[in-house]
Amino acid sequence: MKSYRKELWFEVPGRRAFINITPQVVEALRAAGVKEGLVLVNAMHITASVFINDDEAGLHHDYEVWLEKLAPHEPVAQYRHNGYEDNADAHLKRQVMGREVVVAITDGKLDLGPWEQIFYGEFDGGRKKRVLIKIIGA
Amino acid sequence: MKSYRKELWFEVPGRRAFINITPQVVEALRAAGVKEGLVLVNAMHITASVFINDDEAGLHHDYEVWLEKLAPHEPVAQYRHNGYEDNADAHLKRQVMGREVVVAITDGKLDLGPWEQIFYGEFDGGRKKRVLIKIIGA
Amino acid sequence: MKSYRKELWFEVPGRRAFINITPQVVEALRAAGVKEGLVLVNAMHITASVFINDDEAGLHHDYEVWLEKLAPHEPVAQYRHNGYEDNADAHLKRQVMGREVVVAITDGKLDLGPWEQIFYGEFDGGRKKRVLIKIIGA
Repeated sequence: MKSYRKELWFEVPGRRAFINITPQVVEALRAAGVKEGLVLVNAMHITASVFINDDEAGLHHDYEVWLEKLAPHEPVAQYRHNGYEDNADAHLKRQVMGREVVVAITDGKLDLGPWEQIFYGEFDGGRKKRVLIKIIGA
Repeated sequence: MKSYRKELWFEVPGRRAFINITPQVVEALRAAGVKEGLVLVNAMHITASVFINDDEAGLHHDYEVWLEKLAPHEPVAQYRHNGYEDNADAHLKRQVMGREVVVAITDGKLDLGPWEQIFYGEFDGGRKKRVLIKIIGA
Repeated sequence: MKSYRKELWFEVPGRRAFINITPQVVEALRAAGVKEGLVLVNAMHITASVFINDDEAGLHHDYEVWLEKLAPHEPVAQYRHNGYEDNADAHLKRQVMGREVVVAITDGKLDLGPWEQIFYGEFDGGRKKRVLIKIIGA
């Protein structure tokens, strides 16, 4: 069994962003040389997400509006977590979008459907944060 | 390490449906001949879900009503994604329900709890869509 | 390929609770003796969750309030699932929080970010329920 590990680093200037990381996962898979297996891609921070959906700007705007409705940032005092911080909403939004994805590797390639793209979802930016890519297989 | 791959195809007549796919995953595991490992079951489309919950019609009705409240289909013009399409709500609903499940394989069987059943969740039907089953193990 | 399986048992006195199970997963990994691989940790019951977030009491209170807003327990008659039961809301809450996490194993350790902790989320307590830890790797 082969295994491979890589970290991706991000520093999003604003509070929230969606970044397509599919090319970096493809590159990691090439470096790993695994033909059959699984790749785990997960946020290493608890106010961020890795998820799979469409690379379409209108939809990303819809996610932003929708998540803000489900788990509003303001007023920050509505959350007990916000004693010293103001990011409780980011912990909630990340649960809706998810921490991780697991993708099949077949014939040395990511086994994705036609529109599936892997995203890093940042909900509390302005500092350095990481994503973990872990590949296992043969 | 053994690996096995199978696609399931669906064409749901209406817009939304929940379909129990546990028998197909059990059958794939039998074909794979893996005794210890993991099975990944994921929607290959971004307006659909694979999730684990109860096979109970009342609950499925509750999911339908609840998801429609959290991410309503109408009015379609509320979503920017809906310039050429009308399925933005399906992309949102799928994030709540999730893209994939990973299930343990133990002694050649799906290692599920007493009521766990695997479902395909369709949120934008009327066309052919796929689910991927990927099994790795020994 | 090595594999390892362990069940954790819980009996939460009240209806809902969040329990940090990271130490039990660390202990299982030690017993498994796997250096590189993946660990799957999943609720075996469909009204419970395994998720990764912060071990901070204020945030757990925020999750409780937020989930109750998204999927209220009362009135129980609003849900069709509640013919013989009163736990439909628990099936909904668990979808928001997720069934499972997959965590990388690197150099014999859980490859977690600085604040990542693994939790059992109970949404319908008062009886014995299980979590499955499945480890595969080398």
